[in-house]
Amino acid sequence: MVIAKLIDNVWATRKADNMNGLKLMLAEITGGRKNGEQIVVCDVIGAGIGDRVIVASGTAARQALGDNSIPIDSAVIGIIDDSCKPV
Amino acid sequence: MVIAKLIDNVWATRKADNMNGLKLMLAEITGGRKNGEQIVVCDVIGAGIGDRVIVASGTAARQALGDNSIPIDSAVIGIIDDSCKPV
Amino acid sequence: MVIAKLIDNVWATRKADNMNGLKLMLAEITGGRKNGEQIVVCDVIGAGIGDRVIVASGTAARQALGDNSIPIDSAVIGIIDDSCKPV
Amino acid sequence: MVIAKLIDNVWATRKADNMNGLKLMLAEITGGRKNGEQIVVCDVIGAGIGDRVIVASGTAARQALGDNSIPIDSAVIGIIDDSCKPV
Amino acid sequence: MVIAKLIDNVWATRKADNMNGLKLMLAEITGGRKNGEQIVVCDVIGAGIGDRVIVASGTAARQALGDNSIPIDSAVIGIIDDSCKPV
Repeated sequence: MVIAKLIDNVWATRKADNMNGLKLMLAEITGGRKNGEQIVVCDVIGAGIGDRVIVASGTAARQALGDNSIPIDSAVIGIIDDSCKPV
Repeated sequence: MVIAKLIDNVWATRKADNMNGLKLMLAEITGGRKNGEQIVVCDVIGAGIGDRVIVASGTAARQALGDNSIPIDSAVIGIIDDSCKPV
Repeated sequence: MVIAKLIDNVWATRKADNMNGLKLMLAEITGGRKNGEQIVVCDVIGAGIGDRVIVASGTAARQALGDNSIPIDSAVIGIIDDSCKPV
Repeated sequence: MVIAKLIDNVWATRKADNMNGLKLMLAEITGGRKNGEQIVVCDVIGAGIGDRVIVASGTAARQALGDNSIPIDSAVIGIIDDSCKPV
Repeated sequence: MVIAKLIDNVWATRKADNMNGLKLMLAEITGGRKNGEQIVVCDVIGAGIGDRVIVASGTAARQALGDNSIPIDSAVIGIIDDSCKPV
């Protein structure tokens, strides 16, 4: 997984089947050599812009949604506690 | 997922089984550290050259096509709304 | 797999289902061109901060936990012996 | 997928089970930020040195071979038409 | 797949279940833009330090071991013939 900061919402009216109602957000990886790499993530745990989150990729992302048929490859799996020092 | 801009069509007369009729396009990742990385993506939602799209990879790409036996690893899963500010 | 050093704990009170009780840690890849890349890993073999570990990704990470439904994509699969020279 | 140019054959007399008779080639990614990255790919559609090809990775590569038990992670899935302008 | 040179053994007394007896080695990718990237690979075909090998990742690595429950994501699938010119 990687640590990323949620920086924006992503809106796509035309999209693949099974994606209606999914919340997509733009995240930027923070810390280490990948700092600044941007990814689009799916959120189902109530994260918001500005949150530092843990992002999982691949099959893990679909496990987080509980439905392997949804065509996404990246999802928020945790919101890092504020007390956790920034990386 | 990543955000990319569709920049060209890709034509391959000789190809693997199960790929007849698939639309392949060249996309360039926009924003962040991967800016400018090029990938070939499959589109089934009617995207065109110039569109900013969301691209999913791996098994998610085949979920977007609804057929896991097609040998592709990257697909357009959404067209970003024009009202969404460029990344 | 990659070799990484565990550098911190990661705390996330709000997280995806199936993740309660999982120990998450921040690791930094050591050696080679990816030196300094940071990843969040799950540990079930008792590793601690400062340990040099072997990290597996993707499905392999969930195999290490023995439960493919857990939404993680990276796990510690071994603690490198102290007698093994640093990379 | 990525676009790559086939630059050489790769010969390995000692190899894993299920790989007898497979044609392996060295490919170099062309275009974009990954330009010059080298990968070993499996070809079953009759591509040759000098061809510009589309390469799929992961499970997609094994789908191209029609046998998920073969331990390869990269395969040629299309030969780009000569009329398609170089990327 | 990638071409890498085996440069050392990796010893881990404490490790995940299902990994007893597995031979782990440190490999360094050779050639192209990833030259010098280090990975830990599993070997079951009798490769040794100094050998140039083909390394497969993900599910393919577990196929090479013939057991998808082993938590590894990278394995040697072939030893490149000496007659094959260095990349």
